[in-house]
Amino acid sequence: MATGWGSLLQDEQQLEELARQAVDRALAEGVLLRTSQEPSSSDVSFILMHRIPSVNGSQFSFPLLMAILVVSYAPFTLFPSLVPSALLEQAYAVQMDFNLLVDAVSQNAAFLEQTLSSTIKRDNFTAHLFDIHKQVLKEGIAQTVFLGLNRSDYMFQRNADGSAALKQIEINTISASFGGLASRTPAVHRHVLNVLGKTKEAAKILSNNPSKGLAMGIAKAWELYGSANARVLLIAQEKERNIFDQRAIENELLARNIHVIRRKFEDVSEKGSLDQDRRLFMDDQEVAVVYFRDGYMPSHYSLQNWGARLLLERSCAVKCPDIATQLAGTKKVQQELSRSGMLEVLLPGQPEAVARLRATFAGLYSLDMGEEGDQAITEAIAAPSCFVLKPQREGGVNEAKDPRSAHLTRLSNEAQMRSALKL
Amino acid sequence: MATGWGSLLQDEQQLEELARQAVDRALAEGVLLRTSQEPSSSDVSFILMHRIPSVNGSQFSFPLLMAILVVSYAPFTLFPSLVPSALLEQAYAVQMDFNLLVDAVSQNAAFLEQTLSSTIKRDNFTAHLFDIHKQVLKEGIAQTVFLGLNRSDYMFQRNADGSAALKQIEINTISASFGGLASRTPAVHRHVLNVLGKTKEAAKILSNNPSKGLAMGIAKAWELYGSANARVLLIAQEKERNIFDQRAIENELLARNIHVIRRKFEDVSEKGSLDQDRRLFMDDQEVAVVYFRDGYMPSHYSLQNWGARLLLERSCAVKCPDIATQLAGTKKVQQELSRSGMLEVLLPGQPEAVARLRATFAGLYSLDMGEEGDQAITEAIAAPSCFVLKPQREGGVNEAKDPRSAHLTRLSNEAQMRSALKL
Repeated sequence: MATGWGSLLQDEQQLEELARQAVDRALAEGVLLRTSQEPSSSDVSFILMHRIPSVNGSQFSFPLLMAILVVSYAPFTLFPSLVPSALLEQAYAVQMDFNLLVDAVSQNAAFLEQTLSSTIKRDNFTAHLFDIHKQVLKEGIAQTVFLGLNRSDYMFQRNADGSAALKQIEINTISASFGGLASRTPAVHRHVLNVLGKTKEAAKILSNNPSKGLAMGIAKAWELYGSANARVLLIAQEKERNIFDQRAIENELLARNIHVIRRKFEDVSEKGSLDQDRRLFMDDQEVAVVYFRDGYMPSHYSLQNWGARLLLERSCAVKCPDIATQLAGTKKVQQELSRSGMLEVLLPGQPEAVARLRATFAGLYSLDMGEEGDQAITEAIAAPSCFVLKPQREGGVNEAKDPRSAHLTRLSNEAQMRSALKL
Repeated sequence: MATGWGSLLQDEQQLEELARQAVDRALAEGVLLRTSQEPSSSDVSFILMHRIPSVNGSQFSFPLLMAILVVSYAPFTLFPSLVPSALLEQAYAVQMDFNLLVDAVSQNAAFLEQTLSSTIKRDNFTAHLFDIHKQVLKEGIAQTVFLGLNRSDYMFQRNADGSAALKQIEINTISASFGGLASRTPAVHRHVLNVLGKTKEAAKILSNNPSKGLAMGIAKAWELYGSANARVLLIAQEKERNIFDQRAIENELLARNIHVIRRKFEDVSEKGSLDQDRRLFMDDQEVAVVYFRDGYMPSHYSLQNWGARLLLERSCAVKCPDIATQLAGTKKVQQELSRSGMLEVLLPGQPEAVARLRATFAGLYSLDMGEEGDQAITEAIAAPSCFVLKPQREGGVNEAKDPRSAHLTRLSNEAQMRSALKL
């Protein structure tokens, strides 16, 4: 009893029943967010010590968990998104190029300094990151293993001839999120299509398990560090609605007997320390890998937190990412990479990788103060639909007021909650 | 870094961290309940029609689900329960005997009538069920396939010599719940033990997938009915906190391309009908199987609902359970079965099955008005720890005031949220 797509969006009652089914399935699959009312806790729960009298007169006690509150589901699209298979294959094929490019940029101190020189003058956040970068370089880097978990966000551009092209919006080199929840959305979308009787389409929805892949990267770093009792330190925010996304990775690690401890920057200030070999300890536990799910926005840093970040960067724990990799992900770097000839300089002797990378560039325009930036803004206002404006005018990501930028940024996050349906 | 069991229950801080981990894992695994504030809905959500401008100036719309509220987790024990493997094997071995016994009782109209005669006189609920039973028998039963999904609840009795014995508390022959959620608790308990570094114990926690088994029973009934487009009708309550338990079974069926429609008794009254062959239709869809998750307590029935139940029982859809099987699960029947010689009458020529069944009987005592009942109550008050009092005094299950009964009933429900850890 398959339903036609055409009539489906018109049938409000059927959409509502589908939504009920989809929401229950999303909840059951763990596509969860903490609520904005209780962002620091998944529940307001209590442990009840439950006592049962036994026949011989003694008592047996066990802890029973009872909840008062509450989680919700992460926003998601009701239907999967159609993705032309050629573009999907293209995205897979170019990801290693992007990873190598980010690595090359992060190891190229001269390029970073030159590219970010104008940003550093006006943007305190980037300036602080760069200060730590220079300080660590000066002292000498204690760890030769670097872990990058990068997320590329794409949109499809419709060309004049009607064909679609893959265009990268941005690459996230720190705290890239939604790998955990995205692992569970294919089941939700298969459910929705199966309810509609569209079993063939449901079978075409690709499985996706990024949380396992991310965990395997961290596990490899942990293994290379080479200390069986060392922990992974996840730097977390106090208020973290997206904790279930992170838990999915923690669970994968725990299943490999790698223990994760969640701590805030403030905890690192109070209880973190380096020994004489710059080994990192938290609460007397050695740390093999520091995994940042915090520290990517100016608001995440007090003076105390900057001190904690410096401590972590100086340590010989593997950082995911180290501060140079974080800097490599700034929009200013992304813009610089799109300049003619720049990829060839950074990836010498790799013309095929350069060609694959350049094919996904959407065209980035400086919004720096000065002639080049003014020209870009004038063109954008004249023909707004042709531009993807990203908020990288000096002053920090958060101060962007252009609603189109906000819209596109949000969209790239939501995109993770979709499933790919191969055409 | 395994922690000793002895010190664990004393360490409040560690218990709290464990509880946080366990709760997040339970939520992520779908061990969920709707909240008591919103029992009719998993969320207060809305569908947002999200429009994106595309490059060629047209708009693309897609439905995006956004949530305001909210689910919680089902209460669960922090640790798995130790189960002696001999008792677990015994419980497996005797289950088929119990299923055949319930079937034999349900097919034995004379036994049911005689056993329930005193109950019917004083208990309106059982009387109504019995009326429908007799009416259907008189008309002639339209369907020769019967589906029973029975849940036996056990406790362990410690014998004088210190050994443990498996004792059945009750058998649920209608709307037996928590098979869905119980499928997901082993992962939670493995997680808790792994966090404690008790990886060997974690590996011993048995996997358990009753929701698949329950769904396969329903699928078999659906197949025997033999109509490819017919649906499974799940009779649901309006306010159902335990919907995720039911959804787990629905999801298993949908994965086999068997569609479930959820309806209330009121919906059956308004839109259900039988054709001349007593085939059941709901909203013009043929129904192969009626799966009751409602109708097991007096408060579930208005006069209108009794009419709906009669309609369903008269139909040739497979009932899970039919009304005779529901009657076979009453406490009065359970008590009668424990009378000397009764099992031999109901299961003639099956002495081994009879022995297995009798070994699990805890001793049930009539609380009927009269000498036998008075004697049992006097003994119970004198030595309360030796009795499992079940609320079957005439007047219905709901009127029991004995707090021990309430405690034990609750416990048998909670038992489903545990995992078995083989000793």
